[in-house]
Amino acid sequence: MAIMDLNSDAGESFGNWEMGDDAAIFRSVSSANVACGFHAGDPSTIAATCRDAVAAGVTIGAHVGYRDLAGFGRRFLDCSPTELADDVLYQLGALQALAQAAGARIHYVKPHGALYNAIVHHEAQAQAVVDAVRAFGGDLPLLLLPGSVALSKAAAAGLRGVAEAFADRAYNPDGTLVSRREPGAVLHDADVVVGNMVRLAQTGKLTAIDGSIIRVDAESICVHGDTPGSVAMAAAVRAGLEAAGVTVRSFA
Amino acid sequence: MAIMDLNSDAGESFGNWEMGDDAAIFRSVSSANVACGFHAGDPSTIAATCRDAVAAGVTIGAHVGYRDLAGFGRRFLDCSPTELADDVLYQLGALQALAQAAGARIHYVKPHGALYNAIVHHEAQAQAVVDAVRAFGGDLPLLLLPGSVALSKAAAAGLRGVAEAFADRAYNPDGTLVSRREPGAVLHDADVVVGNMVRLAQTGKLTAIDGSIIRVDAESICVHGDTPGSVAMAAAVRAGLEAAGVTVRSFA
Amino acid sequence: MAIMDLNSDAGESFGNWEMGDDAAIFRSVSSANVACGFHAGDPSTIAATCRDAVAAGVTIGAHVGYRDLAGFGRRFLDCSPTELADDVLYQLGALQALAQAAGARIHYVKPHGALYNAIVHHEAQAQAVVDAVRAFGGDLPLLLLPGSVALSKAAAAGLRGVAEAFADRAYNPDGTLVSRREPGAVLHDADVVVGNMVRLAQTGKLTAIDGSIIRVDAESICVHGDTPGSVAMAAAVRAGLEAAGVTVRSFA
Amino acid sequence: MAIMDLNSDAGESFGNWEMGDDAAIFRSVSSANVACGFHAGDPSTIAATCRDAVAAGVTIGAHVGYRDLAGFGRRFLDCSPTELADDVLYQLGALQALAQAAGARIHYVKPHGALYNAIVHHEAQAQAVVDAVRAFGGDLPLLLLPGSVALSKAAAAGLRGVAEAFADRAYNPDGTLVSRREPGAVLHDADVVVGNMVRLAQTGKLTAIDGSIIRVDAESICVHGDTPGSVAMAAAVRAGLEAAGVTVRSFA
Repeated sequence: MAIMDLNSDAGESFGNWEMGDDAAIFRSVSSANVACGFHAGDPSTIAATCRDAVAAGVTIGAHVGYRDLAGFGRRFLDCSPTELADDVLYQLGALQALAQAAGARIHYVKPHGALYNAIVHHEAQAQAVVDAVRAFGGDLPLLLLPGSVALSKAAAAGLRGVAEAFADRAYNPDGTLVSRREPGAVLHDADVVVGNMVRLAQTGKLTAIDGSIIRVDAESICVHGDTPGSVAMAAAVRAGLEAAGVTVRSFA
Repeated sequence: MAIMDLNSDAGESFGNWEMGDDAAIFRSVSSANVACGFHAGDPSTIAATCRDAVAAGVTIGAHVGYRDLAGFGRRFLDCSPTELADDVLYQLGALQALAQAAGARIHYVKPHGALYNAIVHHEAQAQAVVDAVRAFGGDLPLLLLPGSVALSKAAAAGLRGVAEAFADRAYNPDGTLVSRREPGAVLHDADVVVGNMVRLAQTGKLTAIDGSIIRVDAESICVHGDTPGSVAMAAAVRAGLEAAGVTVRSFA
Repeated sequence: MAIMDLNSDAGESFGNWEMGDDAAIFRSVSSANVACGFHAGDPSTIAATCRDAVAAGVTIGAHVGYRDLAGFGRRFLDCSPTELADDVLYQLGALQALAQAAGARIHYVKPHGALYNAIVHHEAQAQAVVDAVRAFGGDLPLLLLPGSVALSKAAAAGLRGVAEAFADRAYNPDGTLVSRREPGAVLHDADVVVGNMVRLAQTGKLTAIDGSIIRVDAESICVHGDTPGSVAMAAAVRAGLEAAGVTVRSFA
Repeated sequence: MAIMDLNSDAGESFGNWEMGDDAAIFRSVSSANVACGFHAGDPSTIAATCRDAVAAGVTIGAHVGYRDLAGFGRRFLDCSPTELADDVLYQLGALQALAQAAGARIHYVKPHGALYNAIVHHEAQAQAVVDAVRAFGGDLPLLLLPGSVALSKAAAAGLRGVAEAFADRAYNPDGTLVSRREPGAVLHDADVVVGNMVRLAQTGKLTAIDGSIIRVDAESICVHGDTPGSVAMAAAVRAGLEAAGVTVRSFA
């Protein structure tokens, strides 16, 4: 029987600024990438998000990012490997304390934004993230882009790397994502998205933008919760997977 | 045989800005109040401080503070109890992860600066700090000012409160510190300081500013490491205590 | 003929976090209290807000606040008068540069949040704000709560103090605001609000919570733009004032 | 008669953390690159630095940087041109207000750290800095590395670009700086440095690391004030220039 994880970002409010509808998206996902305070998420937001995740039965992952609130962690920051490893370790510990107070713990790590993209190629930063996860202990899995250099770094360090697919993004025939600058990069038709994700869960394949069927190695599907439309899309994906007999469950 | 702890602030550098000579002060103290990133201490500074403390055999405590880098945590911040408790928990977790990577852990909690002073009187903030320490787990002792309302809050919550004395500060006959605005508030004569601290360790009493002998309830003595003079004073206190047969050792 | 100013907060987004519908509220108000980056407002948000204000013919004021993004400037911060004066001056200069790039300039200063409330009573912080406005030059008026000690400090320094009323808040018979902790503190009935504000503009009086008619000294009315309801309320107040023959215009 | 400017960084303390001996270096330089709060410099530090510069007769320049206190602006940040231009404009306005309160104004702009290095090559960020300086008004000159792409962007925008040399750095025969990773990159012999800088001021040429005489286009010489040794070196350069009949004076 097929199994698939659904993950979404959470805990991205900061102080008086709200972002995302975590309560709504937690009805659909099995894993929450919880912000850790460096790109988003103040401590009280993180604490409430952890309690909500526990109440909803959603697995908590650490969404670690660059120290850049003004840029929401979406701007590459050329920090040293030592700085990055220590920044990641700091964030992991901070989230762990708040998760434990909610009766839970961190089960995986997903780098956020520009850091996620950087460690697809950037050897030193990829190694730094892996080093921090190793130093934290518990051998947490890392949730990453298929083909990311951080996946091989994780494997070399004895950590499990988990690749993810993106529900609402079109794929090139070579398995990479269609750039957001290209037309058709973001999918809006729920039927198309659900059909594609069910196929992925059942066969490990999905339909690329040119209609070809391609193999995508993914144990998790990333969905969004920051707009009413994205929440509805996530609910449709979950319902579609379950209707097709796929068990939606954390990979961790 | 008398036992006394010597504690000092540490890990207060931030990025390119250096503060204190941790390596020097670690030769004299048994406990290090390590900054946790909110008033001082970036993650790499904290990590290095933890490694240095381990190497020197110094016990690590969490020096939690207000979220105020520009004010170094020395300005009262009227945050809510929930915000404060979550901020403290976040800091404890962050430091714990970096301490564990250095082969250590947090053994006590000392509030910093304006927070330390606020919870002498401020019931709600005192309770918030105690709640955070309880939520963190491990029943860590709290290092506080004698008479602090946080001491009774800690006791009521089943946590150990530890009172401290200040090596280089003059005391009023009622056991409170002479205000820094008064002449003679800060002691500079090492012989006077050492004599006073030896008496304190052996008898629980010291000489107040008017010459009277007063009882001061303290299991730890706070010394400083931010100037060459303060480092020398700390070394003199340690040497004086040991020469008098007092064992210098963490209270934790 | 009666004249009244309508003011609203603006520019309170920060990076990826959005707050308020400035474009909508700018259709109703004559004055925009633009965040300056310390409690809210990143530089690009501020720049865009200034351009929008110019396009809408809205007068720009500086909404200066405590350095506290995590608390949105709503928590009292016990900074020194020197620190506060320099922080305010820094914010005024920063906003001025962005306003000038949009073809405008700062016409008044309104302290934000906890600072606004602190300087109702806090002599030293009130003086610091006045000192900063004086040092900035141009003798900008200060928009404040009636009865604020900062009003008398401003007058003593040769600056114009402007008092404001709050459209959606109930008043006690003594002219103070009904505390938000009391029932009926916030008014939701647009007809009541509009009637009250027209009376205020025409007679300098409004109806207190007990039905008595009280004198309120105000040259400006504060409205909100952070919810669809508050935007509609502001539009109703503007329409009501104009229908009653009141000219809505900046006090500056 | 030869004229040369000497510039040094200043105002780089932050809150409780001190950096550099501005008072000492102001006895030797003609221009102060004053931090603007994004990589260093809190408002009270900046205000004091401006007063000290005025008292010492030193010309004030704006040392604008990336928004990165933890990295001291020394880490490349991949912000958008719009974000960067607005960040620079914000910093210029903030410094201008504090300079005016000290009876002075900004006379030039020098990008700091990683931004300085980025705009040697990065076309979009170079253009953003130039755009911000243009938007600020007053047609301030930009102090830059010889060969920087920002120099040509400045010229194209009708702004004056000023190139600088580095007193304590060795030069390659092609006029570039010897990398700090190479031996001999930093010069410590005051006689060598002074001789080289006098030659530069008088002839526009200096001796490269291989002994060859090369042309270096520079209207200013950068010296440091962050160690006692660097302060002494700066004093030696100033004394040497004046002894050789060179007038030390701001280029602005």
